[in-house]
Order: sequence, then structure tokens, then C-alpha cells
Amino acid sequence: MPVPAPDVVRAADAELVVTDLARSRWFWVDALGFEAIEEDDEVIYLRGYEEFLHHSLVLRKGPEAGLRRLSYRVRTPEDVQRAKDFFAAKGLPTQDVPAGTTRGIGEAVRVEDPFGFPVEFFHHAEQGPRHVQRYDLRRGAEPSRIDHFNVLTPDVQAAHDFYAELGFRTSETIEDADQIYAAWMFRKPTVHDIAFTGGAGPRLHHIAFFVPESHQILRACDILGSTADHGHIERGPGRHGVSNAFYLYLRDPDGHRLELYTSDYYTGDPDHQTYRWDVQDPRRRDFWGHDVVPSWYREGSTALGLDGAPKALVHPPVSEETVHVGADGLGVVTEAELQRS
Amino acid sequence: MPVPAPDVVRAADAELVVTDLARSRWFWVDALGFEAIEEDDEVIYLRGYEEFLHHSLVLRKGPEAGLRRLSYRVRTPEDVQRAKDFFAAKGLPTQDVPAGTTRGIGEAVRVEDPFGFPVEFFHHAEQGPRHVQRYDLRRGAEPSRIDHFNVLTPDVQAAHDFYAELGFRTSETIEDADQIYAAWMFRKPTVHDIAFTGGAGPRLHHIAFFVPESHQILRACDILGSTADHGHIERGPGRHGVSNAFYLYLRDPDGHRLELYTSDYYTGDPDHQTYRWDVQDPRRRDFWGHDVVPSWYREGSTALGLDGAPKALVHPPVSEETVHVGADGLGVVTEAELQRS
Amino acid sequence: MPVPAPDVVRAADAELVVTDLARSRWFWVDALGFEAIEEDDEVIYLRGYEEFLHHSLVLRKGPEAGLRRLSYRVRTPEDVQRAKDFFAAKGLPTQDVPAGTTRGIGEAVRVEDPFGFPVEFFHHAEQGPRHVQRYDLRRGAEPSRIDHFNVLTPDVQAAHDFYAELGFRTSETIEDADQIYAAWMFRKPTVHDIAFTGGAGPRLHHIAFFVPESHQILRACDILGSTADHGHIERGPGRHGVSNAFYLYLRDPDGHRLELYTSDYYTGDPDHQTYRWDVQDPRRRDFWGHDVVPSWYREGSTALGLDGAPKALVHPPVSEETVHVGADGLGVVTEAELQRS
Amino acid sequence: MPVPAPDVVRAADAELVVTDLARSRWFWVDALGFEAIEEDDEVIYLRGYEEFLHHSLVLRKGPEAGLRRLSYRVRTPEDVQRAKDFFAAKGLPTQDVPAGTTRGIGEAVRVEDPFGFPVEFFHHAEQGPRHVQRYDLRRGAEPSRIDHFNVLTPDVQAAHDFYAELGFRTSETIEDADQIYAAWMFRKPTVHDIAFTGGAGPRLHHIAFFVPESHQILRACDILGSTADHGHIERGPGRHGVSNAFYLYLRDPDGHRLELYTSDYYTGDPDHQTYRWDVQDPRRRDFWGHDVVPSWYREGSTALGLDGAPKALVHPPVSEETVHVGADGLGVVTEAELQRS
Repeated sequence: MPVPAPDVVRAADAELVVTDLARSRWFWVDALGFEAIEEDDEVIYLRGYEEFLHHSLVLRKGPEAGLRRLSYRVRTPEDVQRAKDFFAAKGLPTQDVPAGTTRGIGEAVRVEDPFGFPVEFFHHAEQGPRHVQRYDLRRGAEPSRIDHFNVLTPDVQAAHDFYAELGFRTSETIEDADQIYAAWMFRKPTVHDIAFTGGAGPRLHHIAFFVPESHQILRACDILGSTADHGHIERGPGRHGVSNAFYLYLRDPDGHRLELYTSDYYTGDPDHQTYRWDVQDPRRRDFWGHDVVPSWYREGSTALGLDGAPKALVHPPVSEETVHVGADGLGVVTEAELQRS
Repeated sequence: MPVPAPDVVRAADAELVVTDLARSRWFWVDALGFEAIEEDDEVIYLRGYEEFLHHSLVLRKGPEAGLRRLSYRVRTPEDVQRAKDFFAAKGLPTQDVPAGTTRGIGEAVRVEDPFGFPVEFFHHAEQGPRHVQRYDLRRGAEPSRIDHFNVLTPDVQAAHDFYAELGFRTSETIEDADQIYAAWMFRKPTVHDIAFTGGAGPRLHHIAFFVPESHQILRACDILGSTADHGHIERGPGRHGVSNAFYLYLRDPDGHRLELYTSDYYTGDPDHQTYRWDVQDPRRRDFWGHDVVPSWYREGSTALGLDGAPKALVHPPVSEETVHVGADGLGVVTEAELQRS
Repeated sequence: MPVPAPDVVRAADAELVVTDLARSRWFWVDALGFEAIEEDDEVIYLRGYEEFLHHSLVLRKGPEAGLRRLSYRVRTPEDVQRAKDFFAAKGLPTQDVPAGTTRGIGEAVRVEDPFGFPVEFFHHAEQGPRHVQRYDLRRGAEPSRIDHFNVLTPDVQAAHDFYAELGFRTSETIEDADQIYAAWMFRKPTVHDIAFTGGAGPRLHHIAFFVPESHQILRACDILGSTADHGHIERGPGRHGVSNAFYLYLRDPDGHRLELYTSDYYTGDPDHQTYRWDVQDPRRRDFWGHDVVPSWYREGSTALGLDGAPKALVHPPVSEETVHVGADGLGVVTEAELQRS
Repeated sequence: MPVPAPDVVRAADAELVVTDLARSRWFWVDALGFEAIEEDDEVIYLRGYEEFLHHSLVLRKGPEAGLRRLSYRVRTPEDVQRAKDFFAAKGLPTQDVPAGTTRGIGEAVRVEDPFGFPVEFFHHAEQGPRHVQRYDLRRGAEPSRIDHFNVLTPDVQAAHDFYAELGFRTSETIEDADQIYAAWMFRKPTVHDIAFTGGAGPRLHHIAFFVPESHQILRACDILGSTADHGHIERGPGRHGVSNAFYLYLRDPDGHRLELYTSDYYTGDPDHQTYRWDVQDPRRRDFWGHDVVPSWYREGSTALGLDGAPKALVHPPVSEETVHVGADGLGVVTEAELQRS
């Protein structure tokens, strides 16, 4: 008898290990305008202006940068146990997480998904102050709320199939006759809560926050330009093919990738169809046809296992970057070169 | 044994009777930029640029302007029957609607809700062309998708309670110690699919479409100003207190009210709390404190019964307009005067 | 032999007397984001982010709110003397102003124009820091630069004719067969440096600052709404008929009126034609047809003479408000009522 | 005795030779939204929505793409003769151009400047319809008005010095201790009417049009993306270091380069200071630090002499692209390679 999947509401919280908390604070709070709702010398809890929970992103000081966990909210308290049972039934490691282990998060379960990612499921969480209409507090890029996670993993098909079992539906893919290179999957009725980018993994590709309008994304660039610290701007701004969102990719002081994202579309109808891009379509990632910079395909944050140790990487046999090499103007890149990068 | 409520996904479609189809077409398509996906001498099917179904608004020619129906999409084919059973069990009129009665809509059931509104539930619907990324087609206010309905009804508490039974949750209210003056309720995780405005009813207050950014709303005003036909601009643009959305209210050639709406917030968490405004708060309707014009409180579109005949109005004992009379600067308005308007 | 007019470059600086400097600072700096480049207990020097001079607006503490001066920059040092000679030749009072009388302003001449306004002409001025690309400093409405002055005066024709002698050209007017109700005149190639609004004067109607885009104007409203201090929002936001600019009128804690303004048009061609609006055109002041609130026509800041004493008011025989009374929906307002307001 | 310079008001008009008029029309009118105010099988006259003259850009059919002329408006009829005398006194070719030679332009003089560019000076011109407030007509990127010219020329210092004699002032430069690589010069009080980009010349680098806000620039990209014709997007969108403007560079079907440009700053004060960027500053061209694509440095439109024949190119000894090679990530590029491109 199949073990029922937990009812996942949305991507809700994440924790990144950062090596220099003050420098991270400068980037996330001073430059980009995330609200630091609580902090001390070891940890900062960040949230967007339109969020209701205590926080949606935790930056915690540690010796090596990495991804500690990606957390989903589930609909009922029982769904926490369902999550544990679902993963345990597949022989995957699970860990009970007492309420308060993360400030503001109730009892939860952490698991290691089949691809090596540290994933958490929680229901109870503390409400934060209602700042939706505190325009006097808004700064920087004015992030509204956490929107999604994107991870690098070598076998996108397998990841897609597993998360489909977990109840995620697929809004868009990049594929060809041979394989699927990337997939976007959702629980909340937006383009995604989780996306899988083919590449060496498990690594975090990025965490994305929704901002209200395109001009806030331009402002994030202007602010970073003003500080002469524009090395943080990795790719964009631009319009995505996949998702149709207006986007910007930034790299924080530890190299963790953040996406600022707005204007994707509603996917909540019962017959919502998956839209499939051909991997050769130059508009699939940037609708305006701009090249995807190599670092965007190759770099990501180390994933930490439930024991806190960095996960070893598994490489894909083929990657979108080499398949699409012509249109990205990179010249021929061998897989061996990719694996050394 | 209680009859289960249908699983309603969202406000999805509506039909308005208009008296001069050519003039309506000028307003909705030429000025505001709605896509006329199909049309003839009797009817125009409109949609937003980010929609997936055939249409989301029908304008049908008739001798008297009115609201023909408000339609919700349900999650499964069985939910159509559940909707019928739910309303029938309460002694309310129901009507089977064969597939294709409305172009692009599958089999449905129409009911008269306890407040006299013609409401429809459907599951199957025809997909339209995917125009999300057809920026070359976008015109006018560039409406994205239908967002919600707002209706005038004398007993907001009763309407709220009934739709709560139907599974709608409450995002915001306007109330005082004595009563509730307005309520916003949702199925999809936005601020609302349906809102109840206290007033003489049943009448449609407005139908709202989401647009991508605030500048599209400003453009709608500029276009109407250019045509010297700015009598269509009734109220706004502005920032709402309730919903925090940026808004504009327009009146079409028959006086049907349309809201252009953007930037409300996500309400999908299981513990999402209702936010309650005091009826005396001058920021509740326009966050910047601007008066609400009297016509906005008083005027609406006639609702047609399932037999097509206009529904007689029932007046509320008290209205928000008179209770809040001071801050709206209207001077003292008696209920008798209101009933004559 | 006619005395040559000075070569006026633009409206450049102004000084307002405010009664509570801390409260003014909250409004102008904390809420609206003007840069306080220098300040003490008696005076605050404000500038926009794209300005090059030390400041463009001075708020100076005093017992009674009023307008101390409107200052124009002239092209050469000799033009300061030319200004003095021009006004002296007309029998108008002039006053030499040693360099540094106002912090950051070189030697100047102050005059009383024929309409009772305290006007200053200067050439030398201190440069401030170049903050054009300091996006990290921008706050609030992000004012770019001072744009224009608008004054209330009973005889618009006379004011127009005098400033035409001073070399100002006319971009737009509001008039009818009988008279001119308002005029917009420029030296820099924008819609105006000075405008004359028919009404009891001499009083300052408003000082205007240019902001980069419409969304900064919406943000100013959102910020004031957040502080529940939206009594500061007097009129707008909206699109002007005259000037085509997107605008917002605010009232500071002393009631001084500030306009935030963007997107007017270039007027610098030698054959630029004056555009004349009919006083009955409902689109002349708000292109979208919204009423002009009565306070906008009636209220202004007291002008102080060169001796610092408030100037007595002269009333116009007819005003735009009464002539246009129908379309503004005010009902009949007699001139006597107006004079008492 | 020195020959006085003509009083130049602004960059006002230009003419490009295009090889396929229908394809050009698709790009400029259908995609980008320029107004075709008049046209036939041989020529199209384009203008922006906020312009007052008949047109500001002429596309004329011919066998080889090229730049026919760059035209400046002068302040008085006498300035046309002054322009002729100024260039003739320097031994440069001049040509009388009877009124109507270009539709809508009065009598003019064409000259070849010392750098081989075909430049025209005119005063009288026909007014076009006033479309500033015809928002119902606006399409595409909604260009407002022609803003400036930018030309490729091998000796920027010489070009700068000559145009300084013509009365142009310098807003910004890119330079180092050895030489000047680029210069921006103005008559109207914006950042520029003409800019000189060091490179093989004489060639036109680009013609720029001002658009109202940044979102119109994003829309231009979205429209071109929708048509899958995004090869037209060459560089951007982004924020400039020089000028602080928000920009986008497009290439028309003949490869002529167009810049869409907004939000630069006022330069009209008599003591406006030149801002000098170091050629090594990675923020000088794109404030966000993005690379300048090689085609942007290397490609331009052939200039036609007064006889209509293409001008031979002269190459600079050193170019900004090679001097700044590190930060642009191009790897080492030799001058010989550049000359072959």
C-alpha cells in the first residue's frame, strides 16, 4: 500500500551557512533591503515585506558556506508525520526536529531526498509583524516573499519523477528527444516552488524572492553599482523564457545565488498544461536571446547532509550548456573541462 | 448529513449583458486592450494575455444591461454535481447547463445563491492560445487574467457565512462592534475571488482583472483621457487599504464597473489570519486617504435571475457610506436619500 | 533706452519659513527623501539626488510660515547687476545680498516683483557632492532636482507680460475669450520655471521637484499612507492636461504646497508654440477629468516682503474655480465666499 | 578675425539609407512604435510622440546602407548662413540645400565636418501634429523624441576640440593619462547632442531616442523577444555609467544602431563641470559592470559624403576595447585583429 504524500503548501524557508555574518548582513539587509527581523552574532533571520511568518531565510555563521536546508510548509500538523513516513518508506534518512530548533518554526522533520538534498517539512510557525503596508520600512529591492528553490542535480528526470510523487505538478521543462535538462514544479499556483537544473549535484542553484515590480529589480542593480560592488550581479536583468518572469541573479558574499523575480503567471487550474521548451531554443532561458553566462550553469552552493557534512558531487553525463553550446557562443566545451570547473 | 461543498478553484468567468456591442467593443478591446478571442454581432468573448482558457469575460448584447452569471471553476468533474447537490439541499434553484451553452465552457450547473446572484460552476473548459509571451499583441491596460468578483448585498454577514460554508476563507473585512460592512473571501491564494460590499442587492459591484504593474493602470487612464472619454474613470488610481492592491475603477458604456488591480498578496498558508479594518479608518478603502466617491457606494449592475429577469433589490438597514460619513466628507446623508439613489 | 533683461537660466532655489523644524525635517527628509546636505537648529538645506549645487530648498525656522524668496540662477556674474538695474528702472525695490547670506549662494540681488513676490537672482554658487549615481542614498520619492515655482496672483495677464519682458517664453495657458486664468512660462527648455495661477496674491502656490519616474510618485503616497499621515496628500496622483506631466500635490506640516512632477516635455525650439486650453475643458488640469479640490484653488503660502513682513492680499475679480464651477462639481460658489476662504 | 559659430539648439534630425524599406518599417514602426508621419515606396518619415516638428528620422531606400546626414537645428535663420561661413572658413566642403529638399525641412546647409561626417544645419521646419497627449496612438517602446547622435572617429581629442569651437560643452569623458577615448558634448541642457566614440571612422555609432520610463525599454525587448527576432537586441538593457541613463542598444535590419535612452540629467548651468571617467573603470559604460559586447565597439554605419559616396575609414592607433581588455573579459585582442573586424 502506497504511503500517502504530505500535502505541501509551498517553498517557505531556507537556511544558508555564511562565513562572514557582517558582510552577509551588508549584502542582504543594507544593499538588498531584506528585513532582519531578529539577529545576533551567529545568525540573522530575514523576511520579505509581504510575509506573515517570522522569517523566510536564515543566514547562519559557519566555517564553510553551504546549504543547510530547504523547508516546505505543509497544510496540517499530520502532514509532518506523513512526510516522515513517506521518506522513511523509501529508505531515506529522516530526523525529528523539535519545535524551536529553528527560531519561529514548530516541530518539523528533516529528510535527505534521493538526490542528497536536506529538505524539511513543517506546519506550525510563528507569525511575524504584518509589514505589508509599512512602505516606510521598504528598502533596496523591496523583496516581497520567498518564491522558490532551484537545485543542481545530475538526473533531472529522476528528480522530476520523485517530486511528482510528492504531489508537485510540472509547469515547464527544457528538453529534447533524448532527455530533460531542467524542470519547474509547483505546489502553490505559481510557476514553481522547486526547479531542477541539470548539473553536478547535489548543490543549491539559487533561492528566489518575489519583488513587486520590474523597477525594484533595476534598483537592486543600481544600488550594487553605486557601491562599486557589482561583482554581485551575475546575470540579468532580463525576461525569462521559462516562467516569463522578469529576473536578476545575484551572488552573495559567499557566492550563494539569489534570484529576484517578478511577474510569472498563475498555474492553479486542474488542467494546467506543461509547457516544453526545446533545449536549442535561444529564448528558453533569456527571452531576449542573451547568453547565459558560464558560471550560471556551473556554480552552486554545497549541500550539507543531515549530519552537516558536505555532500559529494555527482556529475551528469551531458549538460544543457554543452548541448546548447552553439547559441550560447561559448565555443566547444568538453565535459572534462566542465567537471574540472 | 451535511452535503459536501464543491472544491472551488477560483473565480473564472462572467457574462455581462450590454446594450450596444460596438460601443462596448470600443471600450473593452480598443481602449483597454482586452483580447477579443472570438466574436460576432451578438457576443464578444474576452480574455487576458496570461490566461489559458478560451475566455474569461463574455459581453452579450441584450435590451437591458445586467449581470448574467458569475462562474467559478471547480477542481474535478464530480465537483459540478457536488455544487448542484449543495445548493439543491438548501432549497435553492439549480439549472443544468449543457456543455457549449457558453462557447468554450463544458457542462456546468447554474444556481441562484441565497442572495439572488446567478452563479455557475464548471470544470471542463476549452484551452485558448497561449499568449503569455505574445508581447507584440499587448495593448491598452494589458489585462493579465480575471481576478475576482465583488457584489452588493444587504446582509454581508449572511453572505460571508454562506460562502464560508462553500469553503471560502476570509482575508479581510471592514467592520465595527455592531456589524460587518464588507468582506473579502478567497479560494485561490490571493486576497479574494469574491467580495461582499454592503449595499442594496443583489447587484454586481465590479469584476476585476489583474494587470502586471502599476504603470499599466496609469496607462489605462491616459488612454481614456486621450479620447476625452474620461467619464469612464470613476475612482482612482490609488492604493487600497484592504488588499494593499494598486487599483482603478472604470465604468463601461453600460455602467458596468471594472476594476484594474495589481500587487495584492499571497494568502495560501493554512493559518492565514483575517485582517479586520475598522469602518472608521480613513485608510481602509484608499490607503492614501482619498474619499470614496458616492457613486462607488451606490451604483451597481442589475443581477438577472436564472429566468433572465432582473432581481428586485433589498436594501441594507445601515451602510458603510453613512456610518463613515464624516471621513468621506459627504455631509450627512440619510438612509432615505440613499434608498432613492 | 530699454534696460536689458538679465539672462535667467532656471528656477534654482527657494526659501520657506517653517514653524517647527523637526516636524518639517520628518516630512521633507524622512518621509519624502530629500537630502539634508547641511542643517542646524535653525535651518535645513535640502537638495535632490541629481543636483550639482549645494542645495535647492532652504527650510528656515520662524514664527510664521511663509515664502522668503524664489531664486533664479543667471548665466553670468554681470547678469546679477543687470537684474538689479532691470527692476530698479521699473521703480521696484531691490536689495544687494552679499555672498554667503544664504549658505552656498554667492552675491545676489533680491527684488520685489510688480506682484509683491520676493525674487532673487544669483550667479555664483557652491557645488555640492555629485550624488547622481549614489543610488544607495536614495529614499522616499527620490526627488531629482527643483523644477519650477507656481504663484497665486490676481492679474495673470500682467504677470505674464512682465515675465515675458524678463525673457520668459510661454508654453501653455488656460484662458477664454475674456481673460487668461493661468500661464506657464520657461527659461530652461521644459514646460516651466514659473507659472501664474489666478487667485488672491501674492502667495506661493507651490514649489515643484522633478522625480525620475511615475512609480516614485506612487511611492510617496504609499509612504505617507503608511504613517497614517495622509492628510499631507492634497491632490493626485494624476496626469496633467497642462504640461502632460504626472503629478502629485502634497502639503507640508506648515501647509506649504509641494508638487512631485515627472515626464513633461522639451520646449527649447525657437518656434515652440504656446498651447492654449479653454477654461471649460475638464481635462486641462487633470487629464483624466478628476475634480480639482477646492483647497488647491484657494490656499497658498504667505509671501514675505523684502522687509520680512507678510504681503497683503489682492483678490482677482473672477477666478478659474467659479468660471469652471460646473465641471468641477463644486456647486455655485460666490466670489464673496471665495474671498473669505 | 574668427568666424562666429552658429547657435546650435540641438540634434534634431537624421537620415539613414536602408536597403529594404518594408523590413525597416516592420522594425521601426510595427515593433518599436515610431510614428510614420508620412511615407511612400522610397522613404518613411518617423517621429516620436512628444515631438513638434514634422519628423526626426528619415529612412530612405538605397542600394547600400549608410548615414546620409546628421542634422542640427539652429536658433535663427541667420545661423544657417553662419554655419556655412564657419565651415567654409576652415576649408571644409559646404552645400546649399533648398527648402523642401527634405520634406518638412526649410533651407539648410550641409557640410562635411573635419572627420568626414555629413552634417546639416537648418532653422525653418514644418510643425507636425501635436501628439504629446495622444496616448491612444502610442505603441512599442513609445519613443518620445530624438535625443543625440554618437559617431565613431579615430581622433576623439580632435573631434572634441572642433565641436567645442562650435559651442558644444562637454558633460563627460572617458580618458586616461595618455588620451581621451570618448566624449559627450551638448548644446541642449542634457548629457549630449553628440558623442564621439574612439574607433575606425567616420562611421555612425548610433542615433538615440528618449523614451519616458525604464519600463518602455523593457517592453521593446519583450516585443522583439516575442517575434523571435531578438537578434536586434545588441546590448542592454542596463544603466550607463556615463550619463546615468537607462539604455538599450538595438540593431535595425541594416545593422544601423539605435539607442533607447531615458533618465539622464540636466546640464544647463553655466558652471556645469565635466565628469571624467577612467578608462579602466568597469562601471564607466555599464554601471552594473556588465561587459560591453565586442560588436558595440567595432561596428557602425558607413558615412556617406556630400557626394553620396561612402567615406573611407581611418583607424585609431589605440582603442578603448584593447586598453580596457581585462575588465571586458575579452582576452587579449591585437589591434591587427581589430582592424580586420
